[in-house]
Amino acid sequence: MMTYKAIETILNHRSIRKFKNQKLTVEQVETIIEAAQYASTSSYVMAYTIIGITDEKLKEELAAVSGQPYVKDNGHLFVFCGDLHRSEQLGTSEQQNAMQESLETSEQFIVATVDAALAAQNAATAAEDLGLGICFLGSLRNDINRVNELLQLPDKVIPLFGLAVGYPDHQPEQKPRLPLEVVYHQNFYQPFEKQLPLIQEFDENLKSYYAKRTSNKRVDTWTAQITRKFSNPIRLDVTPFLKMKNMNKK
Amino acid sequence: MMTYKAIETILNHRSIRKFKNQKLTVEQVETIIEAAQYASTSSYVMAYTIIGITDEKLKEELAAVSGQPYVKDNGHLFVFCGDLHRSEQLGTSEQQNAMQESLETSEQFIVATVDAALAAQNAATAAEDLGLGICFLGSLRNDINRVNELLQLPDKVIPLFGLAVGYPDHQPEQKPRLPLEVVYHQNFYQPFEKQLPLIQEFDENLKSYYAKRTSNKRVDTWTAQITRKFSNPIRLDVTPFLKMKNMNKK
Repeated sequence: MMTYKAIETILNHRSIRKFKNQKLTVEQVETIIEAAQYASTSSYVMAYTIIGITDEKLKEELAAVSGQPYVKDNGHLFVFCGDLHRSEQLGTSEQQNAMQESLETSEQFIVATVDAALAAQNAATAAEDLGLGICFLGSLRNDINRVNELLQLPDKVIPLFGLAVGYPDHQPEQKPRLPLEVVYHQNFYQPFEKQLPLIQEFDENLKSYYAKRTSNKRVDTWTAQITRKFSNPIRLDVTPFLKMKNMNKK
Repeated sequence: MMTYKAIETILNHRSIRKFKNQKLTVEQVETIIEAAQYASTSSYVMAYTIIGITDEKLKEELAAVSGQPYVKDNGHLFVFCGDLHRSEQLGTSEQQNAMQESLETSEQFIVATVDAALAAQNAATAAEDLGLGICFLGSLRNDINRVNELLQLPDKVIPLFGLAVGYPDHQPEQKPRLPLEVVYHQNFYQPFEKQLPLIQEFDENLKSYYAKRTSNKRVDTWTAQITRKFSNPIRLDVTPFLKMKNMNKK
């Protein structure tokens, strides 16, 4: 019988937030980056740069931005950046002038963000295939200007998120996902009213999951979490930051 | 000896643009969606919806937007959408009012775009693990308003890209990637001047690749492609479209 090892790895995913004190080898890091590079890329632009953080002082500074200890304590820390600077710099100064209108659009901001995320998910899957654990770190956007400064990012390069990788030092339960029918629709968008009964069922299941799990027990539903989250605007400095970097500007 | 099957699948990726006339089974489609769902998601929001297109007329309309025959002729077509509508609708009308400020930010637009892309890359890897081929379709953004209308997307749901999946009917060579050192930097961003010699070497290698490959031979370099691409602004309607959908607005 054929087994689908990539799918097995993917379906076994859980975010790891406590790592053993063991660094990745250079070979492991390079395998992860190579996997990232083989993701699809829009029009062959490869509009991202990945920064590997090995300097301990720098990791501490980034952990301070995120407020999460596993940004410092892990086997390796990657920061995924959207990068239109490389493309811009390929041009002569005359070409560069002509390229600004395009580079500053929301369209090209989508290109850079999607390119970086596709690469990052390959990196995550490759790391898990190597027996390592991973955690995505959107928390680096808690102070995007500070991360930009720490990593010395030029114009048109923006830090999108981090990826902490390492040997897992806990085995968290897998977090349930929304029912397939809620996120997967046929031919056109299914009105929210049709999704609602399934979401209510999911809320009940999640309540049991939170009540039963071995650590971090809590009383909560998905609906309550999400409405709380969006009632509290965060990272309002991201918009002016992007414009300052001359991306997503017009 | 241990083999890393997920990594093997990832490193073997090539985009497939010609598919056999054979549809995916429901089981294959559901495996691909389940894999997508197990990607990491920012703050558990799962801010995406995937629309599976089975209606032939609708596929034709979408192929007309993209200008690519494989948008119509494939084993299955998925459209990945960023979705903040579901989150919004979870709230009471009072909560919904309070949530607008957050939902309209570039920060939450990044959340939706990254969530959708992480899910999509898992879908792509799962499909390839099943022996299928894939092609990402940014070309659906050629007329984003039309796709929005065809898929009946409500406020705060945006079509980001498609994913065509099917049984490969050609075996294209693998497209080279930039040298690892160009996209992977240590601790801080490496100035473009340091990347340049490696890019020039890559340009030479790519020139040979294009001259030698079995189909679509051409004379070109990466530098020439990228400067051409960005000298020609495209999809300028994406910015106003996003604002009209009340995303990436402030």
